[in-house]
Amino acid sequence: MNQYKYFLSEKEMPTHWYNILADMKSPPPPYRHPATMDIMTPDDLAPVFPAACIAQEASAERWIEIPEPVQDVLRMWRPSPLVRAHRWEQALDTPARIYYKWEGVSPAGSHKPNTAIAQAYYAKQEGLEGFATETGAGQWGSALSLAGTLFDLTIKVFMVAISYQQKPYRRVMMETWGGEVVPSPSSETHAGRAILEQDPESPGSLGIAISEALEYAMTHDGYKYSLGSVVNFVLLHQTVIGLEALKQLEMAGDYPDIIIGCAGGGSNAAGIIYPFMKDRLTGDKPDLRAIFVESTACPSMTRGAYAYDWGDTAKTGPVAKMHTVGHGFIPAPVHAGGLRYHGIAPTISALLDSGDAEARAYHQIEVLDAAHTFSATEGIIVAPETAHAVKAVYDEALRCKESGEAKVILFNASGHGHFDLAAYEAYHRQVLEDYHLEEEKLKAALETLPTVSG
Amino acid sequence: MNQYKYFLSEKEMPTHWYNILADMKSPPPPYRHPATMDIMTPDDLAPVFPAACIAQEASAERWIEIPEPVQDVLRMWRPSPLVRAHRWEQALDTPARIYYKWEGVSPAGSHKPNTAIAQAYYAKQEGLEGFATETGAGQWGSALSLAGTLFDLTIKVFMVAISYQQKPYRRVMMETWGGEVVPSPSSETHAGRAILEQDPESPGSLGIAISEALEYAMTHDGYKYSLGSVVNFVLLHQTVIGLEALKQLEMAGDYPDIIIGCAGGGSNAAGIIYPFMKDRLTGDKPDLRAIFVESTACPSMTRGAYAYDWGDTAKTGPVAKMHTVGHGFIPAPVHAGGLRYHGIAPTISALLDSGDAEARAYHQIEVLDAAHTFSATEGIIVAPETAHAVKAVYDEALRCKESGEAKVILFNASGHGHFDLAAYEAYHRQVLEDYHLEEEKLKAALETLPTVSG
Repeated sequence: MNQYKYFLSEKEMPTHWYNILADMKSPPPPYRHPATMDIMTPDDLAPVFPAACIAQEASAERWIEIPEPVQDVLRMWRPSPLVRAHRWEQALDTPARIYYKWEGVSPAGSHKPNTAIAQAYYAKQEGLEGFATETGAGQWGSALSLAGTLFDLTIKVFMVAISYQQKPYRRVMMETWGGEVVPSPSSETHAGRAILEQDPESPGSLGIAISEALEYAMTHDGYKYSLGSVVNFVLLHQTVIGLEALKQLEMAGDYPDIIIGCAGGGSNAAGIIYPFMKDRLTGDKPDLRAIFVESTACPSMTRGAYAYDWGDTAKTGPVAKMHTVGHGFIPAPVHAGGLRYHGIAPTISALLDSGDAEARAYHQIEVLDAAHTFSATEGIIVAPETAHAVKAVYDEALRCKESGEAKVILFNASGHGHFDLAAYEAYHRQVLEDYHLEEEKLKAALETLPTVSG
Repeated sequence: MNQYKYFLSEKEMPTHWYNILADMKSPPPPYRHPATMDIMTPDDLAPVFPAACIAQEASAERWIEIPEPVQDVLRMWRPSPLVRAHRWEQALDTPARIYYKWEGVSPAGSHKPNTAIAQAYYAKQEGLEGFATETGAGQWGSALSLAGTLFDLTIKVFMVAISYQQKPYRRVMMETWGGEVVPSPSSETHAGRAILEQDPESPGSLGIAISEALEYAMTHDGYKYSLGSVVNFVLLHQTVIGLEALKQLEMAGDYPDIIIGCAGGGSNAAGIIYPFMKDRLTGDKPDLRAIFVESTACPSMTRGAYAYDWGDTAKTGPVAKMHTVGHGFIPAPVHAGGLRYHGIAPTISALLDSGDAEARAYHQIEVLDAAHTFSATEGIIVAPETAHAVKAVYDEALRCKESGEAKVILFNASGHGHFDLAAYEAYHRQVLEDYHLEEEKLKAALETLPTVSG
């Protein structure tokens, strides 16, 4: 009898997050001030994020307790299943054993609520009225709106205008959970108005929406800003994924040789990888391979610079050292909206730099080819972002077929594609496009990076 | 600590379906031939359904084994979670203990694959090439397309034209699993062409689509017809839901006082109710209440006749004794497409007739009011069909609040609403309409019922 799913009981859900900073030999340098480039202190960050999150951002503690009220909400859908992809393995005729962590079971349909719930809890504890945030395709905005209804916070979402128009149902989902959604650029902020003056039809971008949300939070009493990826405390909150997977693989009697996740800002991939990366960093598993997969349309890890850059277009947010294609870079309109961010988490950047992790980029057609083999055998139709991870697993599984090695591959199935079927339709109709990113465009974007000394 | 979810291991998944015919004192009378009104024999049904399904249709066996290959596929997402709705209970301030079985975890997003997988297995065993079927909003067509890709069968789906236009993503989902989807009425069948001649812009109906699928199956070698509800073998396949719930409630130390499901043809409600109804029919639980919930727009149980009627508009399918609003009845365009079928399962009809079950009808606005309280506390955005069950639970929970009774209420959360957010959008914008069904219209539809003697 095939066993497909490995479930932990709610009592076995992790009670602490794993903080990779505790085990990194070369942790990322501190953030810099967006205007002065001076090192930012926790006080500088205080107007932006909840105090508890700021404390977590630079914490050296290896294990950070998950507050009981946060655990209580997470238990509504967690622990999430770990699934053995027997049918896909068979279809690929590979000796590899493939496992995926299925995060699509959350009400919002992705891993994003893992941090949204925690952030909302801290905000409520701090007496805040609400959060301002940005969202691209809507995954993050949905997750934070869900957290908002559960912790009674107002959630103001600046949604990239083109997605606002093209993905009305993600907006309705946010509104069903009480989120207040406006298309970005909007007339509600200086940053938005400045863009609209130049181009009243601007399709918007994640960088612009971040600038708007930051400004809104700073200029409204009782509001702070919520971010769904990139920073360390967000990645920290996502480690429940990998901590669960670790126990579930134990149940299955396996340990991964390769762990794979798609990476826009990097939070879902870090969430599954970091608890295992601990074993590599501490020397227990020196051969463990971790692969972060991005889109060729926004290749921060594979073609970007490892340098200081602003996190947002208007240059009002913290400056971080990270792999980046430049804060002004506007990626081609690939369907994987979540992979269109110009940077990647500083901790992931540092792990790539130290050789502890690998990066890989794919075009969207090959990615949906692989996702199609997955849905045909495993049933699940994944989000286009997740499909990038699926493609990397597909390639590794075929490599195992060639070499005859029965490697154990673990990946994060970070979300379902129920709101992304336009991508699958374009794929079926063979009108999906691949985009070639020209060296000139990338070079121009990289010329705008700030100069940071010290 | 709140425990939310009760999970069974894959080994605890039911190995047999429960056949309620074995325990009914007054089982439904046999089907009649659509033209002659003579009693139909299994041989008469042979061109329509797989032989194994026909054998199940009239079986008197209480327990029917689930073939191992069917169990193996079901294990990809089953057993599904039973969830205690702690937060909703708290918001409703009710002493009732509310549990829901969450069927939205299947790849197609509803309970429908439970029977689609079984039917596809039997079809493959029989050497068939494929199935023809109909679908309204697309839940059933998706489920059968999923089953088709897993068992290598061609699935031809006649999709009600108005849904084909309004719900393109359900169509893309079917196509992603290899389904061949055409809008109904189509030019591919006599039945479709006849309608198109009268009205080239016909929005279609479930009755018409059934006629087309039946005709297609009968006129194409290697094809049979697959039905997603109403008939006994379909309800039988859905009893895995209730059988699992029975064991899961045991884990929670509870037994339901009231069980609730929404009912179009009735399969999801019967699936959760029948394994408990067994206890009522055999005298163990004489006070158990079972409530089937329908739409006021198509009130077969609450305002229809209990009489023989055709299952399809073109009068080519079997005639069954059931609660019906008439095979020619065209319901108002409520968002709950799955509740727009003119009849209800013969076994449910017989249980209503013997007083062993209750029926109730709701308008769509009150239903979404209730669903909104559910999504705000439990996170899950349910399908508009499921929202009808949610509304009945809501009412019973408030009744418990008034009486102070701590009743145990179990309901089937049959599917998610990710493809139905247009209904929620209309609700938020306050443009959702309720429809009043006039007595005259109903009376006219009921005048078309056949005369059956003997």
